[in-house]
Amino acid sequence: MDLTSIGGIVFGLGMILLGQKLEGGHVGSILVLSAGMIVIGGTIGAVMLAFPTKDFVRGLKMVGLVFVDKKSDLPGLAKQIVDLASIARRDGVLALEAKLGEVQDPFLKRALGYVVDGVDASVTRDSLETAMEAEAGEATIGAKVWETAGGFSPTVGILGAVLGLIHVMENLSDPSKLGGGIAVAFVGTIYGVGSANLFFLPFANKIKRKLKLEKERNTLIAEGVLSIQEGVNPRVLEEKLRAYTGEHAPPKGADDKKKAA
Amino acid sequence: MDLTSIGGIVFGLGMILLGQKLEGGHVGSILVLSAGMIVIGGTIGAVMLAFPTKDFVRGLKMVGLVFVDKKSDLPGLAKQIVDLASIARRDGVLALEAKLGEVQDPFLKRALGYVVDGVDASVTRDSLETAMEAEAGEATIGAKVWETAGGFSPTVGILGAVLGLIHVMENLSDPSKLGGGIAVAFVGTIYGVGSANLFFLPFANKIKRKLKLEKERNTLIAEGVLSIQEGVNPRVLEEKLRAYTGEHAPPKGADDKKKAA
Amino acid sequence: MDLTSIGGIVFGLGMILLGQKLEGGHVGSILVLSAGMIVIGGTIGAVMLAFPTKDFVRGLKMVGLVFVDKKSDLPGLAKQIVDLASIARRDGVLALEAKLGEVQDPFLKRALGYVVDGVDASVTRDSLETAMEAEAGEATIGAKVWETAGGFSPTVGILGAVLGLIHVMENLSDPSKLGGGIAVAFVGTIYGVGSANLFFLPFANKIKRKLKLEKERNTLIAEGVLSIQEGVNPRVLEEKLRAYTGEHAPPKGADDKKKAA
Amino acid sequence: MDLTSIGGIVFGLGMILLGQKLEGGHVGSILVLSAGMIVIGGTIGAVMLAFPTKDFVRGLKMVGLVFVDKKSDLPGLAKQIVDLASIARRDGVLALEAKLGEVQDPFLKRALGYVVDGVDASVTRDSLETAMEAEAGEATIGAKVWETAGGFSPTVGILGAVLGLIHVMENLSDPSKLGGGIAVAFVGTIYGVGSANLFFLPFANKIKRKLKLEKERNTLIAEGVLSIQEGVNPRVLEEKLRAYTGEHAPPKGADDKKKAA
Amino acid sequence: MDLTSIGGIVFGLGMILLGQKLEGGHVGSILVLSAGMIVIGGTIGAVMLAFPTKDFVRGLKMVGLVFVDKKSDLPGLAKQIVDLASIARRDGVLALEAKLGEVQDPFLKRALGYVVDGVDASVTRDSLETAMEAEAGEATIGAKVWETAGGFSPTVGILGAVLGLIHVMENLSDPSKLGGGIAVAFVGTIYGVGSANLFFLPFANKIKRKLKLEKERNTLIAEGVLSIQEGVNPRVLEEKLRAYTGEHAPPKGADDKKKAA
Repeated sequence: MDLTSIGGIVFGLGMILLGQKLEGGHVGSILVLSAGMIVIGGTIGAVMLAFPTKDFVRGLKMVGLVFVDKKSDLPGLAKQIVDLASIARRDGVLALEAKLGEVQDPFLKRALGYVVDGVDASVTRDSLETAMEAEAGEATIGAKVWETAGGFSPTVGILGAVLGLIHVMENLSDPSKLGGGIAVAFVGTIYGVGSANLFFLPFANKIKRKLKLEKERNTLIAEGVLSIQEGVNPRVLEEKLRAYTGEHAPPKGADDKKKAA
Repeated sequence: MDLTSIGGIVFGLGMILLGQKLEGGHVGSILVLSAGMIVIGGTIGAVMLAFPTKDFVRGLKMVGLVFVDKKSDLPGLAKQIVDLASIARRDGVLALEAKLGEVQDPFLKRALGYVVDGVDASVTRDSLETAMEAEAGEATIGAKVWETAGGFSPTVGILGAVLGLIHVMENLSDPSKLGGGIAVAFVGTIYGVGSANLFFLPFANKIKRKLKLEKERNTLIAEGVLSIQEGVNPRVLEEKLRAYTGEHAPPKGADDKKKAA
Repeated sequence: MDLTSIGGIVFGLGMILLGQKLEGGHVGSILVLSAGMIVIGGTIGAVMLAFPTKDFVRGLKMVGLVFVDKKSDLPGLAKQIVDLASIARRDGVLALEAKLGEVQDPFLKRALGYVVDGVDASVTRDSLETAMEAEAGEATIGAKVWETAGGFSPTVGILGAVLGLIHVMENLSDPSKLGGGIAVAFVGTIYGVGSANLFFLPFANKIKRKLKLEKERNTLIAEGVLSIQEGVNPRVLEEKLRAYTGEHAPPKGADDKKKAA
Repeated sequence: MDLTSIGGIVFGLGMILLGQKLEGGHVGSILVLSAGMIVIGGTIGAVMLAFPTKDFVRGLKMVGLVFVDKKSDLPGLAKQIVDLASIARRDGVLALEAKLGEVQDPFLKRALGYVVDGVDASVTRDSLETAMEAEAGEATIGAKVWETAGGFSPTVGILGAVLGLIHVMENLSDPSKLGGGIAVAFVGTIYGVGSANLFFLPFANKIKRKLKLEKERNTLIAEGVLSIQEGVNPRVLEEKLRAYTGEHAPPKGADDKKKAA
Repeated sequence: MDLTSIGGIVFGLGMILLGQKLEGGHVGSILVLSAGMIVIGGTIGAVMLAFPTKDFVRGLKMVGLVFVDKKSDLPGLAKQIVDLASIARRDGVLALEAKLGEVQDPFLKRALGYVVDGVDASVTRDSLETAMEAEAGEATIGAKVWETAGGFSPTVGILGAVLGLIHVMENLSDPSKLGGGIAVAFVGTIYGVGSANLFFLPFANKIKRKLKLEKERNTLIAEGVLSIQEGVNPRVLEEKLRAYTGEHAPPKGADDKKKAA
């Protein structure tokens, strides 16, 4: 559960509605079905037209990523890879096979599969990189769907507002209805600007950020497993992976020596 | 037939018109010939001025891509290429000649033509890449035409609205006509914003996405055929192509071994 | 004569004026000298300030490119280069000297000059590439001048409109002049948005597109002449150049064989 | 203490409030709690939704960078590195260990740690580069948080203004309250535009600039330490580092000779 | 003295004021101290906050570049370098020392200093490139300061206008002051849009263009001096440099031969 996501929606909407209440307005004024149909319906139509079906569906599904919080224990992952490297060093890469069952991360499992299977190192690298690129590309499309929705909705909101204003202008003869009509028309702008800035664009950004972190995780795995395949010394590997885990400390040896000195 | 495209237009326009009806407006108010002439005519003129004739015509033709849904069976295509690789391995590349008739995909046919013809590997690679780049470049221009139209039409819509408002302002003396005049003027904005957001920009995006998928397909073909020419082992090729087909599973061998273990 | 350019201007302006007429307006309302001075004058001033004199003049001159249509017979050019390659193959590169007089294209003439002159291959490549880059860079500046004008003019138009509105506001006491004053003020917006979207930005785009095609042509020439210098087989060269001419057909040999099969 | 940052805020806000006072307005008119809640609350909500918790917190923390002025004595740093290079040249890299205690800069300390520790040169380079990339990437996210806030707040400000206008329109019957109501509504725009342009966007820019300078400093350190590890002549190193310190003078030797000549 | 810069300001401002006069307005209406304080003061504050002190000062200083016109005789410079190459060829690089006094261009002087000083070729290349990059980077920041000012000022102008409108709305009871109040408020927009489009953004563009030309000049120098160090034949060097000077003519030899033929 991503509490910042849920907190962001609750806090943002809450403050806006509270502020509106303080000014003397009521929520009812901005609950206008027709405006909602125009803005949300028009935006959905534009996004459907803008993307192939597969992309559109992927975009809808990826909204899950906004609210789910995957724990990412990078130092733990690095430690696991270094342990696997030690085993491979000592007992040969085939010894990793027995460990495959304990591996949780699907990408790590897959990458180790290549090693155990004796796939050529350059093919392993190519396959892992192509897979990472392909996954990242596909996933980015999901974020792009929301970004596009956030680009269309404010202008569709303006379209809704102008449609309402046209209606008002055609009925200028009854001034008593003027204010109410304009108010309803303005709700289109609220829906367009609000949906884009409080939902669609933040969704796109959060998805992109989480994909970025996912990619960093996979890069660590790929680097680690390729090093195992090359038979890199586990201690060197440990040092190498530290750069990816954000533990920006000098290598252990350096500290030891300093203490000794 | 691309149902998402048609559905997007029908749903988007439908919801907007329904919403307008709910508010008490009627479609008639936004059917204004003069506004249509100004916005669509002005936009067409600007786009014609902005592109060479050839690009403009290509852009118009490419709108077909928005509504046609080409099936793209990537795994099937990869299988076909692996089968061809097996034949080439067993019987030599000339044996592929008899198979050329069965190949549907024009790019695959062309690529195999180079192999059968004994064209040098580096020339084949260069030719396929240059052809892919050139096709992609030309096709992108088609999408760009619609993007440009979507960039011009909202501002031409504002131009139409302001033209209408000028007319209204010059006739302020008759207030009874004021509202109707402003309403007509606002239709220019509707046409500009609507054509851009409900048609032109989504068209451009859909075209770009479909071209991207087409390019991925052609990359798979080029990689596959170049591997055939190099005499790559069909099983290694199968593994290699899997990265392009989106089947992100560990190589078959790895699974077998795991089951055996 | 680029008919799409002229047609675009005539059609765009025509439809806008016709639409305005249909609404009951007359051209006279939007012919306001003061607004033209403010918008066009202000934009010219800003563009002069934004570019060195040389760039500014080049930009003005390049507007010719918008209206002139240079025929570009790429397949014919490729054939000519292949013929020259055959001569060079048979009789040596010095034999090309006699042919220099028949060459029309200045860039081809220049490139062949290096070959005939026995200039070192790497110097030829460097010189041709640097020249192409330099020409493309300079020419792009010409397009950039119009793009910048198209960026400034709408905001200068708003400046003109606001100047007009200030004048109107200061004379609110005479309501009979209100409408006319606002109408005149709005003409500034018309000029700003219109000049940018119907002229400046399309100019920039057309210039950029034509320069792109020019560069593709020069790339074909450079590739061809460098191949002549390297003594590439004319048939291989023919195949190589086909990728640049947009004739995306399998090499001739492949077809022959298929027919024979 | 970054006096330009504090001066910028004081001067900017001061001039705006003074200007408002000159026009006869008073600060009280723009101190509207409800508008503040809507604009700032809505923006915070959107930013929380747009970023993972870790990024959001990092963004908040990095605002410190805007107000703290880290002295960066690049020539002094270069001199220190050249001195260390001399020691390493004379007494071997292990002699640097005794100097580690005097080194203040944490990145320099860390880089020297690798050298003293005898880590392989390519691993040192990889580790330093990955660390610099990682730090720069993480830090950029902090700037991005403010940039995103500056992108959301003006539109949320418009949302607040329109909410206010809706309220006004619904109460048109009492014209005496009209002006005050619109005034309050407009405060939303003030808050949105003001927070973005006077705080959020400048914050983002200042953070990015300071990170850029930090990265240049670290590049100098990395280049210097790697040269020490390679055993580069201290005088050559001095010359090399001069390019990074902004001392764009010809090498000392050149001057000497000229004087001698 | 850059006459286009001064001419651009005079012509732009002149036409705008003349146009305003034609419409019946007077300059006095747009000379409003309070609006100037808000817009210019607020923009200065935002820019100070957005940049480190050093960048801000550099930006202010670089405005000189907008008005100063440095003559750049590239063909003459190329000739000078070719002459120096001839001397170096004939009498050795040390013979260049005597010529250093005649060299005006500081970058050429510096580059020759390396050659005379016998600095290693790769160090010379590195140093010249790093210096060019560093200078270009620092200078670009100067342009960026103005670009940022041009990005802030229109929105600060809107802020000023809305502040004025709030004041007007609060005093709706006295309609006679309405028009004048709105007029004053609108001056904020004039200042914001005008300062950005007539000054700040053109300043940034002109500075960037001049830096680009400076960089091209330095590239020619670097290429030339490195060729001297490598002992390239002066005639080949002459040909090579021609690509940088914009003299896109076939090499001299080619013409000679043609004439002879």
